[in-house]
Amino acid sequence: MPTTLKEFEAVFPQLVEDLSEHCRQYGLPKNILEWYQQSLNHNTVGGKCNRGMSVVDTSTLLLSHPLSNDEYFRAATLGWMIELLQAFFLVSDDIMDGSKTRRGSPCWYLMPRVGMIAINDAFMLESSIYVLLKKYFRQEKNYVDLLELFHEFTFQTELGQACDLLTAPEDHVDLDNFSLEKYSFIVIFKTAYYSFYLPVALALHFCGLATPLNLRQARAILIPMGEYFQVQDDYLDAYADPATLGKIGTDIQDNKCSWLVNQALRRADASQRAVLQACYGRKDKDAEARVKAVFAELHLDSVYQQYEEERVAEIRGMIDAVDESQGLKKDVFEEFLRKIYKRSK
Amino acid sequence: MPTTLKEFEAVFPQLVEDLSEHCRQYGLPKNILEWYQQSLNHNTVGGKCNRGMSVVDTSTLLLSHPLSNDEYFRAATLGWMIELLQAFFLVSDDIMDGSKTRRGSPCWYLMPRVGMIAINDAFMLESSIYVLLKKYFRQEKNYVDLLELFHEFTFQTELGQACDLLTAPEDHVDLDNFSLEKYSFIVIFKTAYYSFYLPVALALHFCGLATPLNLRQARAILIPMGEYFQVQDDYLDAYADPATLGKIGTDIQDNKCSWLVNQALRRADASQRAVLQACYGRKDKDAEARVKAVFAELHLDSVYQQYEEERVAEIRGMIDAVDESQGLKKDVFEEFLRKIYKRSK
Repeated sequence: MPTTLKEFEAVFPQLVEDLSEHCRQYGLPKNILEWYQQSLNHNTVGGKCNRGMSVVDTSTLLLSHPLSNDEYFRAATLGWMIELLQAFFLVSDDIMDGSKTRRGSPCWYLMPRVGMIAINDAFMLESSIYVLLKKYFRQEKNYVDLLELFHEFTFQTELGQACDLLTAPEDHVDLDNFSLEKYSFIVIFKTAYYSFYLPVALALHFCGLATPLNLRQARAILIPMGEYFQVQDDYLDAYADPATLGKIGTDIQDNKCSWLVNQALRRADASQRAVLQACYGRKDKDAEARVKAVFAELHLDSVYQQYEEERVAEIRGMIDAVDESQGLKKDVFEEFLRKIYKRSK
Repeated sequence: MPTTLKEFEAVFPQLVEDLSEHCRQYGLPKNILEWYQQSLNHNTVGGKCNRGMSVVDTSTLLLSHPLSNDEYFRAATLGWMIELLQAFFLVSDDIMDGSKTRRGSPCWYLMPRVGMIAINDAFMLESSIYVLLKKYFRQEKNYVDLLELFHEFTFQTELGQACDLLTAPEDHVDLDNFSLEKYSFIVIFKTAYYSFYLPVALALHFCGLATPLNLRQARAILIPMGEYFQVQDDYLDAYADPATLGKIGTDIQDNKCSWLVNQALRRADASQRAVLQACYGRKDKDAEARVKAVFAELHLDSVYQQYEEERVAEIRGMIDAVDESQGLKKDVFEEFLRKIYKRSK
């Protein structure tokens, strides 16, 4: 049975207490401690926690038995570290993108008295990961591997973010900057590594199954799966019913280097390209509609359907071929795929 | 013979090359790599590198022999990691403080095309530390200690920064927020740890002398020394000749929780306190002059002279009492003290 958000969230207060205790040892003034606690709660809790819960669910599948209370706590703690990493990125992404809301609340930097202090708060969210790793995993023989895992995934995500920010600045539209190669780099580094591969890599370490073979197999399946997930995200941004999706897509107006615009650029004739160059990345409903008209002329809807079927077939093929001899299980990947295949939100 | 800035800087291009090679393995697009290299060079090089060079000089003193080329390179690499940590903090501090220039150049976030992308660039400067640690120190038996050292000092500096930002917001003057206890926390955490204790802790690890006794002794001397250094900095901000100091002090206008204002608040009568409350933290030359007049009435100049003599005597006493039996040397601390005692800039 997969874990529930309620069970997973029930672990977090203990982690806030651990981090607070660590700060109290330093003699941190009380009002600063309260600020840090508010940042931890506002920025880390309140999302779907898919990444964090995957660590628990994957560990349950790999161990083939229900987790004991202690096992659950430790696996969930690793899961919360991914959520802290994500919080670190989201707090700063929102500043860099000038976003207004996140998970239905104002972005942290827009909360009263916060402003640019949010940058330092983001740093502290990242640092929290290492305080918790030291407290709970210092005795493990794979402690160094866990530290290096977080360092590597953090840097990879930052490289993906750098590529995204520099390829598609909101205030300067130049479609010559875009390419499917850059798109692929951004998606793999900014999303696939920490959202798909990291939870499974952590679970493999947690279960003592992080052999080179198992890590290599997990990576080979989960990176394409993360790429497929982001392509889907880009597709849904333009094609999903906003009521179902829960938000109105803004990729076209925001000059995003999305899968759709890259596919369009590959297929457009000169006049269609001219429309894209004139209308993409403008904060203007009519310009957006003209871009969508070009997408329709190029049948990107069916291009996507075909991509999805091919990609999923490929991923299924890799899952079928998984070598389970070192304790990895096909189920782990089937579970990830089941959650995202044909999703509508 | 202490190292020179020229020798120390000569190491950096190799580290940029190592980091670039690491990114090339990931297939980072060329223009993004160039951006990262520019950020590394703009933000890490060009300062006095006192912290970084201290690692080299302290290691030379501890080993009692001139460093071989390889030893120099490795000690300097640890030194550059402090400079990278500092660059990570300075890039983001400048955004949080709205600063205009840094080391005679425009702040990174004010450079063409950078803007808030600087936040992600700051993250990448921090991540660079761990790429280099892994490349050059993974084989050492104290690799975990080095990782934990950087994590701990990073978090401590962030806590000091949080306390500073929340105690003295530029746009809201409330002197009741200030206290010598908060001042002391800010100074120790934001400055003393990474500027004074970290270089020596790294040198002790580098020389294989990081015993608990040696680390404890270094900390006990260098934290008060860092505190003294910052008090001096605050004093010079108001009392030094701007021509000698190389800048015009702005602590009073910027509402800084400085040593001087905390000493003034401790000594002020009701009418002097009213002047401080009315005039401190205003962007106004006349208001600043009235604050300085209160400082003069309270003889803060001689309060500082007395503080300096007492503090230095105390530190000298601790240095004299250093137990050198595990390879620590009094010289290390004498060298630090010599550089800062009675400095005028």
